[in-house]
Amino acid sequence: MQNLKPFIDQARLDLAELVALESVSAQGRMLAETAHHVSELLQAEGFTVQSYLGEVAPILVAEAGEGDRTLLIYNHYDVQPESPIELWESPPFVATERDGRLYGRGISDDKGEFVSRLAAVRALKAQHGGKLPLKIKWLIEGEEEIGSPSLGRFVHEHAEELKADGCWWEFGSIDPHGRPIIYAGLKGIICLELRARVSDSDLHSSLGAVVDNPLYKLSRAIASMRDETGRVTIDGFYDDVRKPSEADLQAIQSIPDESPATKQAYGIKGYLGDVSGVSYYERLIFEPCLNVNGFHGGYGDAGSKTVLPAEGFVKVDFRLVPDQSPAKVLELLKAHLEKHGLSDIEVVELESHEHPARSDVSHPFVQTALEVASEVHGHPAVLHPSSAGSGPMHPFIEAIGLPVVAAGISNHASRVHAPNENIVIAHFEKGIEFALKFMDRLSKL
Amino acid sequence: MQNLKPFIDQARLDLAELVALESVSAQGRMLAETAHHVSELLQAEGFTVQSYLGEVAPILVAEAGEGDRTLLIYNHYDVQPESPIELWESPPFVATERDGRLYGRGISDDKGEFVSRLAAVRALKAQHGGKLPLKIKWLIEGEEEIGSPSLGRFVHEHAEELKADGCWWEFGSIDPHGRPIIYAGLKGIICLELRARVSDSDLHSSLGAVVDNPLYKLSRAIASMRDETGRVTIDGFYDDVRKPSEADLQAIQSIPDESPATKQAYGIKGYLGDVSGVSYYERLIFEPCLNVNGFHGGYGDAGSKTVLPAEGFVKVDFRLVPDQSPAKVLELLKAHLEKHGLSDIEVVELESHEHPARSDVSHPFVQTALEVASEVHGHPAVLHPSSAGSGPMHPFIEAIGLPVVAAGISNHASRVHAPNENIVIAHFEKGIEFALKFMDRLSKL
Repeated sequence: MQNLKPFIDQARLDLAELVALESVSAQGRMLAETAHHVSELLQAEGFTVQSYLGEVAPILVAEAGEGDRTLLIYNHYDVQPESPIELWESPPFVATERDGRLYGRGISDDKGEFVSRLAAVRALKAQHGGKLPLKIKWLIEGEEEIGSPSLGRFVHEHAEELKADGCWWEFGSIDPHGRPIIYAGLKGIICLELRARVSDSDLHSSLGAVVDNPLYKLSRAIASMRDETGRVTIDGFYDDVRKPSEADLQAIQSIPDESPATKQAYGIKGYLGDVSGVSYYERLIFEPCLNVNGFHGGYGDAGSKTVLPAEGFVKVDFRLVPDQSPAKVLELLKAHLEKHGLSDIEVVELESHEHPARSDVSHPFVQTALEVASEVHGHPAVLHPSSAGSGPMHPFIEAIGLPVVAAGISNHASRVHAPNENIVIAHFEKGIEFALKFMDRLSKL
Repeated sequence: MQNLKPFIDQARLDLAELVALESVSAQGRMLAETAHHVSELLQAEGFTVQSYLGEVAPILVAEAGEGDRTLLIYNHYDVQPESPIELWESPPFVATERDGRLYGRGISDDKGEFVSRLAAVRALKAQHGGKLPLKIKWLIEGEEEIGSPSLGRFVHEHAEELKADGCWWEFGSIDPHGRPIIYAGLKGIICLELRARVSDSDLHSSLGAVVDNPLYKLSRAIASMRDETGRVTIDGFYDDVRKPSEADLQAIQSIPDESPATKQAYGIKGYLGDVSGVSYYERLIFEPCLNVNGFHGGYGDAGSKTVLPAEGFVKVDFRLVPDQSPAKVLELLKAHLEKHGLSDIEVVELESHEHPARSDVSHPFVQTALEVASEVHGHPAVLHPSSAGSGPMHPFIEAIGLPVVAAGISNHASRVHAPNENIVIAHFEKGIEFALKFMDRLSKL
C-alpha cells in the first residue's frame, strides 16, 4: 500500500478551492465558474472533458483511462443555499478545520465526495506508472440541488457514450460506529399540491351551514388517500410495486437497527405498525408511502376566528419504489379524487419528479464495493438495497442498464443542506483509500 | 306623532361623544371611562344605575319607569379593535358623515343601537309628561366583543332583578330593499383547536414510510366528523336538536331569498345540497354545523419541501341550535376521537362558548316588534326565528324565561368589526322612531 499522504494533502487544497466557489444552483451563483474549475482539475489528470448545456448549469462528461472495465462516476458541483447564514460557526464558503472535522457548504455534498475520488485517481495513476488501469467516465452536473431537471433526458440521449460496467453514485456515509453504509438504489418521488376553493373571499363561519368548507374537502381528500396503518388507499397504487428479491431481503437482515436511535434523536412518539429492525427497513426501503408536507388555510393565529376560509392547500409527496412511475401515480390520484367526488380539487405537480431505481444487490459491482468498504473501514459494510430518500438514479439503471452503488464520506451529523455542513477528516482520508482500492479492484474484475 | 327632530339632533351629539371613547375590550382601552359616560347619560334620564365588576369591564344595570309592562334591554358599550387602521377613510374614533352615512368604530355595533334607544326614551318621556309608561331595565356590558365572559353567570345570579316581559336584543338590520330584519334567537357556538404531534422536531419526509403524519391524523379527524353533505357524523350530535315549531316553519316561508345575492357577492361556487329559499334558511337557522376555521402545519411557501412536520393544528367551530349544549358537544367529540383511534389528538377549547337560544316566534312580544317595524319602515318586517350567528342570548331565555327579539339599525354594508363601520343616517332616525313606538306599544300590551 503506497503512502497516501501527498494525495490527501493535495485533496485538502483542492477541496478548499472548490468550497470557495459559491455554486448555489437555486440562485444561479457561480455555476459556470465552478464547472470550469472542475473541468481544469479533470483535464490536469488527463481527462478529456465535454461540456453540455443544462437548464441552468453545464453538464460535464469527462473520460480517461483504458482497460477491460469501465466505471461511470456521478457527482455534482452545485450546492444548497447557505442560509440561514447566522447559524454558521465559520464562513460557509471557507473550508475550516475544527475538532477533526472540516466545515463548509458542499464539503460533504458533494465537493468532498468529488475531490476524494479525484485524489484516488491520482494515486491510482501513480501506482500504475501514470496510467489508469480502467476506463473512467465521469458525469458531473450542476443542477442536482434543484432536482436535476436536465439529467434524465441527457442520460437517455447519451446512453451509448455513458455505457459502463457500473455506476458509482454521489453519496454514502459512515455510521457512528464506523460502519460504511452503502446504497444500491433510491426511491422515486412526486411532489404535488392539492388546492380547494369554495368562494372568492372569506365568509363568516355562520354560512358553514350552507357553504362547503375547503379545509374539510382537503381533509377528506387526504383521509381518503391512505389509512391509519400508513397504507395508500388509491386504487392501483401498489400494482407496479416490485417485490424485494431474496438477495434484497437477505441484505436487510444485516442492517443494524437504527430505529431506536432515530426515535430517540427526534422524539418520535412511535412507529407505524410498531416496526423495528427488519420490519422497519422493509417499510423504509421497499414500500412506497404518502407524506403530507404541509397543510394551510384560514385562521392560524392565537385564539379563535369564526371564518369560513375561501381556500386552502395541501402539499404532499409520494415516495415511490420500482416499478412505480410518477406520471402513473398522478393519474391514479386524479382518478381517485374523481371517484370520491373531489374532482373540483385542483392537483398541481411541484417541480420535477424522480423515478425509483434499485440495483441487483448480488451484482459483482455492488459486492465489490461492499468488500472494499469493509476492508478499508475495518467493519462489515452495511448494504441498503435502496435509500429511503430520492434522487436522479433511475435513468442510469433504465437507460444504460447499469448496477449503481452509492458509497461515500458523509456521516450521520454531516448537516448536509443545513448550516455547519461538515465531514470527519478521517472519513475523507478513508474515502480516498476506498476510492483507490475500489477502482483498482474493479479494473481486475 | 311628535316631531322627533330635537331628539335625533341630541342623539347625533351623544353618538359622536360615545364613538370618541375608544372602548376596545380586546385591548382593555377606556372601558371604565366609557361605562362612566354611559352611566351618566342614563342617570340624566332618571335611571338608577348599578355597576358590577365584570372580568375586564363594568356591567351596568339601569332601571327607570313604572307600568304594567317591563322591558329588558341588552346593549354593550365596548367595540372591536380599529385595526387595520390604514383602511379607514376617516379616523375610526371620530363620527364622520359621508353620503348619507355616519362612519366610526362602534357607530353601528353597538353605540348607534344604544343611542337610538336612549333617544327614544327621551321622546317617550316627553310624550308622557316626563314619565316612562313602562318599566325599563337596561343591561349594558363592556365585554361583548371578547365573548361576554362574565355575562352568563351574571344573568343567572341576577335573574330575579332582571325579570321582565321580554328582552330587546342589541342588534338587527335593514336589508337593501328597506325591509327590517328581526331575529328571535341566536345559534350557540363552541370554538375548539385540535392538535396533533408525532415527534419533537420535523423529520425528513422519507421517514413517512415508518412515522405517522400529524396532518394526516388531523385530516382523518376532520373527515370523520362530518360527511360531504355537511351533516355532522359524531354519534349523538343531533340528539338534542329541537325541531322547529309550526310557527318557526311558517316564519321562514316569508324570508326573502337572499341566497342568490350572497352567492354573487362572495363568489360562492355552490351551496351544500343546492339549497335555496326555504331550504337555505332551514339549514341556516335550524341546523347545527361544523366549520373548519383554519388548518396549519408544515411547509407553506412556494414549491415543495420534503418534510414530515412534527405537528399541526386545526381550528373548528360548531354552530349549535337549541337544545344542544357546548359542553356536551365537546364530550361527544372527545368520545368520537376515542372511537376512531384518534385520542392522541389534543382538544383545546378556545375562549368562552355560547349556548343556543330561540324564542317562541308567536309570542306577542315578538309579534309586536314585527308589527311596529313593518309600520315604521313601510315594508313587512322579515322574521328570522334565529340568526345564523351566535351571541350571549341563552341566559336571558333560560335563566329569566324571556322572549327575546333583536331589531336594530345596521345595514348589509355596515362593515361591523371591519374598517369603515357605518350606519345609514335614515336608518338611525327610523331606529329612534321604531324604539319609541315599540316601547309605547309594549306599555299597552
